[in-house]
Amino acid sequence: MSATVAIDLNADIGESYASYKMGMDEEIVKHITSANIACGFHAGDPDWMAQTVALAEEHGVSIGAHPAYPDLAGFGRRDMALTPDEVAHAITYQVGALTAFTKGKKLAHVKPHGALYNRAVGDKDIAAAIVKAIRKIDDELIHVVLANSVWEDVARNENVLVARECYADRAVTPEGTLMPRSQPGSVIHDVNEVTSRSLRLASEGKVTASDGNDIDFAADTICLHGDTPGAVEMAASVKSTFESSGIQVKPLSSILG
Amino acid sequence: MSATVAIDLNADIGESYASYKMGMDEEIVKHITSANIACGFHAGDPDWMAQTVALAEEHGVSIGAHPAYPDLAGFGRRDMALTPDEVAHAITYQVGALTAFTKGKKLAHVKPHGALYNRAVGDKDIAAAIVKAIRKIDDELIHVVLANSVWEDVARNENVLVARECYADRAVTPEGTLMPRSQPGSVIHDVNEVTSRSLRLASEGKVTASDGNDIDFAADTICLHGDTPGAVEMAASVKSTFESSGIQVKPLSSILG
Amino acid sequence: MSATVAIDLNADIGESYASYKMGMDEEIVKHITSANIACGFHAGDPDWMAQTVALAEEHGVSIGAHPAYPDLAGFGRRDMALTPDEVAHAITYQVGALTAFTKGKKLAHVKPHGALYNRAVGDKDIAAAIVKAIRKIDDELIHVVLANSVWEDVARNENVLVARECYADRAVTPEGTLMPRSQPGSVIHDVNEVTSRSLRLASEGKVTASDGNDIDFAADTICLHGDTPGAVEMAASVKSTFESSGIQVKPLSSILG
Amino acid sequence: MSATVAIDLNADIGESYASYKMGMDEEIVKHITSANIACGFHAGDPDWMAQTVALAEEHGVSIGAHPAYPDLAGFGRRDMALTPDEVAHAITYQVGALTAFTKGKKLAHVKPHGALYNRAVGDKDIAAAIVKAIRKIDDELIHVVLANSVWEDVARNENVLVARECYADRAVTPEGTLMPRSQPGSVIHDVNEVTSRSLRLASEGKVTASDGNDIDFAADTICLHGDTPGAVEMAASVKSTFESSGIQVKPLSSILG
Repeated sequence: MSATVAIDLNADIGESYASYKMGMDEEIVKHITSANIACGFHAGDPDWMAQTVALAEEHGVSIGAHPAYPDLAGFGRRDMALTPDEVAHAITYQVGALTAFTKGKKLAHVKPHGALYNRAVGDKDIAAAIVKAIRKIDDELIHVVLANSVWEDVARNENVLVARECYADRAVTPEGTLMPRSQPGSVIHDVNEVTSRSLRLASEGKVTASDGNDIDFAADTICLHGDTPGAVEMAASVKSTFESSGIQVKPLSSILG
Repeated sequence: MSATVAIDLNADIGESYASYKMGMDEEIVKHITSANIACGFHAGDPDWMAQTVALAEEHGVSIGAHPAYPDLAGFGRRDMALTPDEVAHAITYQVGALTAFTKGKKLAHVKPHGALYNRAVGDKDIAAAIVKAIRKIDDELIHVVLANSVWEDVARNENVLVARECYADRAVTPEGTLMPRSQPGSVIHDVNEVTSRSLRLASEGKVTASDGNDIDFAADTICLHGDTPGAVEMAASVKSTFESSGIQVKPLSSILG
Repeated sequence: MSATVAIDLNADIGESYASYKMGMDEEIVKHITSANIACGFHAGDPDWMAQTVALAEEHGVSIGAHPAYPDLAGFGRRDMALTPDEVAHAITYQVGALTAFTKGKKLAHVKPHGALYNRAVGDKDIAAAIVKAIRKIDDELIHVVLANSVWEDVARNENVLVARECYADRAVTPEGTLMPRSQPGSVIHDVNEVTSRSLRLASEGKVTASDGNDIDFAADTICLHGDTPGAVEMAASVKSTFESSGIQVKPLSSILG
Repeated sequence: MSATVAIDLNADIGESYASYKMGMDEEIVKHITSANIACGFHAGDPDWMAQTVALAEEHGVSIGAHPAYPDLAGFGRRDMALTPDEVAHAITYQVGALTAFTKGKKLAHVKPHGALYNRAVGDKDIAAAIVKAIRKIDDELIHVVLANSVWEDVARNENVLVARECYADRAVTPEGTLMPRSQPGSVIHDVNEVTSRSLRLASEGKVTASDGNDIDFAADTICLHGDTPGAVEMAASVKSTFESSGIQVKPLSSILG
């Protein structure tokens, strides 16, 4: 009997800006159940947000916000020394901005972007600022957090809806955390390997860590990339393998409910 | 018997940015019933928005959005050739962003800022874009429009809640429109004159036009400035004169209801 | 005997931003003699500017600034109501910023971008602001202006170095001005037609106007596009046709000298 | 015989933005010999830069650039994880932009702002990026660095013109470095104490460290603040005390020459 029989697939979309097109949103959106839509601080703008919300709705994909540091010049990938209050207000602003494009509907989830995500993984104060800000906007929002992080602990303690995220294309330490990108072998590029790791995560709740041993790893959602070479192929492979293996691919609201 | 026995007083607040303080919000807020809060495009930022919403709530003042062109460098005072869709999306983004700071409550109204406001006064397509964007976000939002403008006609035709705005410190043409700032005498600086014009507007529904004749002028709200010399004194004078004259100063929702 | 035996070919490059790549700069740069490099207001940023200056230097292409309105969100394509002083200061800022990347060398020319360029074509005050700002920075800078425009007249009157620009892929009115993009047939997409128009412009100093008649048209530089489908093919076709026809393709400084 | 008989007084000016006025530039400029002018990344904009350069020229004050992280939203006071190359390009851009407002003259010096300054104090790689970027733009530019910092060592090793800066209103550790602002007593607010510390620095080359002992401290320039309460009074007090004590107050170029 499998540890997990249903899982969500998420991807960051809507990361174009002005005349600049980024990502293969029209393709990726076919293979996911949750879309993290950029909110204008690291990428995205009001026009792209309108268009991307419409794209996600057309494909029946759950819509969530993908807020970031205010760093368009750095695509939100550079750490910034914001105070917890500044982070909370930046989150509130961006989540609200995206919500207005849903015509009265609510967002399903929030997943911070880039350097802000990475900061939340290990910084208790920033994690708490994010969690509390999201809860204050709407206490039914799902908090997507990196599985086994300080951030997950913070979110659990605040009794919000938590979705454990896993990256199937990233190596995992024996402790269940992400191996830093700076280390060799930290990113897995082979489609077959990513697909088989995804399948084990979903069906057995296990992943092979960097020391070669299997560890338990319960994930609610797997992140698929939308802007890397081979991204569409990888997303299609994971999605179709799940379907042919009897894994239900469902949005987070159905999984956490 | 007076044409109007209740009126709203509104002012633009929250127009500080980062380390830059602008306006005497803490004083002006005492004399108004509706606050138009900047949303980050011409002024304001997430931190100031949080603080300004709290200030308005503390004083029991109705909260509305004050969206603008994306022109922080020009304080939203320079006309920009945005398409109607771009205007609609910019409005949606900003109104949503502010809404999230109200912790689940709704905004009362929307009043565009500066060059965008001026554009709507005479441009049917931009006015329609603004009106439809606001209605799509929330069809109970009140649309603050310049009285007797193309924009008011557009809003009436769309059957939204319309609040007719008047500027007591601006000269009015015989047709009931604003005299352009470029003309001498277009701005009235004298506190007593502004106060007495405000009182006639509220109590008699009349104003003396630039040709010396009285015209009918029904206003739902009078705009008080918050960032000019003497602004606080003028706001206080209008408010106290209204109160001592039996004019009810009430938020728009009570007046239009 | 030809009216013109030498001509410059220019293109806008360096219009990428942050993680957003735009244009085929590495290809286009092989076919031009003058590069107009974006300066961060509509496109480009310090990192792309450093990289693009190096690319132009590597290919021996003359470097000029491509300043714009402060409108990254609109790629500088939306008209903005800046005052002449604001335009002058914006030009100064951007030209200076780019100059610093040339390690003590000077720029060759300045060509404004998009909506600012279009404004200068017909607005005497803005044209004068641009011309005077550039001359004040360095009176040896070449002013690239649309041939037969108000702007050209203004620049001639100020006795600066003027380079008359022509768009070989745009229809021309009998008066020698650009046919507006809104009119059918205003943009010519056929490579052969653009190439043959370019050749006549350079060798005979003539162009066929929209009414079918030939008019005299002396051009110092022809603009090649770098971000449209077929741009590289068109640039290569024009360049190689010029070379095989004995037209010298040389930077503006050699032509105006 | 005094260790120092001439010293420079510097202040950050031009930190207004758009409609936002900051600082008492018109007063402070009377009491300094070197102005560090904001370049648009943390504060300042093309219009203010034009106006501030004119103000400094009118008062015969040496003009230098005050470049910062690209963080207008945080006034350049938040650390950002830029790479050394990104820092170098950001410096180049800003120094170039300001230079163009001097109408062909050169700048005298460069002094980074806020979080970038603080980063350079202790980060060898960022300090090297700053020093090399400035030298590449113009090898006669003076590098203002915090005295006794890693940054000073880096600059000395690169054989550039180095101006040792001291803050007379900041406590100094026995090792001659700044006491962090987070520690009590790190900022000195008393005008008389700041004035007398300034005088000892200039006349004796000594300062009393936080442990009560005197240490040698050779400074080329003392920073005066322009945006704090009492800033003008303090600047005037230091300047007039220097003049009445026979200390020559001269721009850096005269001191380092």
